[in-house]
Amino acid sequence: MTLKLFEVAGEDPDYRPSPYCWRTRMALTHKGLAFEPVPWRAVEKSRIAKSGGGTVPVLVDGDLWLRESWDIAVHLERAYPERPALFAGEGDLTKARFLEAWANRELHLPMARALLADGFPLLAEKDKAYYLERTKRVFGQTLQALCSDPDSAIAVLQERLEPLQSVLAESDYLGGAAPGYGDYILFGSFQWARVASTRRLIPAKSAVARWFQALLAAFDGFAARQPARDHWV
Amino acid sequence: MTLKLFEVAGEDPDYRPSPYCWRTRMALTHKGLAFEPVPWRAVEKSRIAKSGGGTVPVLVDGDLWLRESWDIAVHLERAYPERPALFAGEGDLTKARFLEAWANRELHLPMARALLADGFPLLAEKDKAYYLERTKRVFGQTLQALCSDPDSAIAVLQERLEPLQSVLAESDYLGGAAPGYGDYILFGSFQWARVASTRRLIPAKSAVARWFQALLAAFDGFAARQPARDHWV
Repeated sequence: MTLKLFEVAGEDPDYRPSPYCWRTRMALTHKGLAFEPVPWRAVEKSRIAKSGGGTVPVLVDGDLWLRESWDIAVHLERAYPERPALFAGEGDLTKARFLEAWANRELHLPMARALLADGFPLLAEKDKAYYLERTKRVFGQTLQALCSDPDSAIAVLQERLEPLQSVLAESDYLGGAAPGYGDYILFGSFQWARVASTRRLIPAKSAVARWFQALLAAFDGFAARQPARDHWV
Repeated sequence: MTLKLFEVAGEDPDYRPSPYCWRTRMALTHKGLAFEPVPWRAVEKSRIAKSGGGTVPVLVDGDLWLRESWDIAVHLERAYPERPALFAGEGDLTKARFLEAWANRELHLPMARALLADGFPLLAEKDKAYYLERTKRVFGQTLQALCSDPDSAIAVLQERLEPLQSVLAESDYLGGAAPGYGDYILFGSFQWARVASTRRLIPAKSAVARWFQALLAAFDGFAARQPARDHWV
């Protein structure tokens, strides 16, 4: 029985910009679980209605339709305990949850200001009106206004990344010597940047750049095979 | 052989404002290690010269003179492995290190803006010139200028606390069901606020307030016995 993963795709069905879906892709790959990637567009709510929501990632595992990347990771850890662990116990899990809240709240706003306009042309034609409306709803302004000063947004992002830079200057991964779900949470954000924009959001030769490249190369280059837009690795 | 802990004290030798020293106090108490608290003033550099630095906490453990709260915590974990663990493995430790960098960088600036002027009169008379100079050096402005708008600083702090509020709404502690060193890192910051100022920095009835009260009550109320300034618990 193959797992199915509904994921945001673009006009190109192989384009995969969603940071949340990348968290799930990496979690499945870490667990060594094969999955069928199902391209999905934001207007196709009925295709994922069984999940109880209208957003992806949605994982279909047998009779279960699961949504929300965090809940999916916790499900995978419980349902497949014999496979490599995503979390090293309860303290690690709780702190990974903190990292998720920090990334979603502190990193994604400056990243949206830096990236969303760049990635917009790559979205599915039938999704574009939806995403323009969503930008206004979530950020309170038009896409054009939100993304009017990407360089300042990138400067803000660098400031906010400092705690991560300092930790990754000392440790290979947030999981220690090997990556875990805490790493995949943050990896997803930067993979979004890598596939959606030519702008470099991580300073070259920084600790975060070294860590990101290591995760791109992990699992025989699984994430590196997703095409980057320019000078990103 | 008793451990000795050099700590920032005020004019009152029992006043203990330092968030970094509180991290170490809680770590020692978690380990069940008795220690002799040694009041220390910032101008007394020669008393801690054997540590190799000029700041506290400094822990004297036999022939070892240790400095920096993080390094002391790691030492305690290695030197006393048979006692309750401060870290639940490598992933937990690395993420606790992230929490430390986040607290020092994101929380302590707005907290200094909210608290430093309030706590200033409680410092040792002989330290006051040192701390005024230090404020200019670290923050680039006078104490008066730094603390000119404490209410705005508290509002900024509330924003930055959101990731912590969301995690502690789901989990008892950052360690999961029981506290660990990641909890003590953040506890130290709020204990500083509690002893130095009458301002409430954590919204009453919030998840962080519930967690903070639980840590005050831990170890038979060890941290609660440190006098608070007003309506803090």
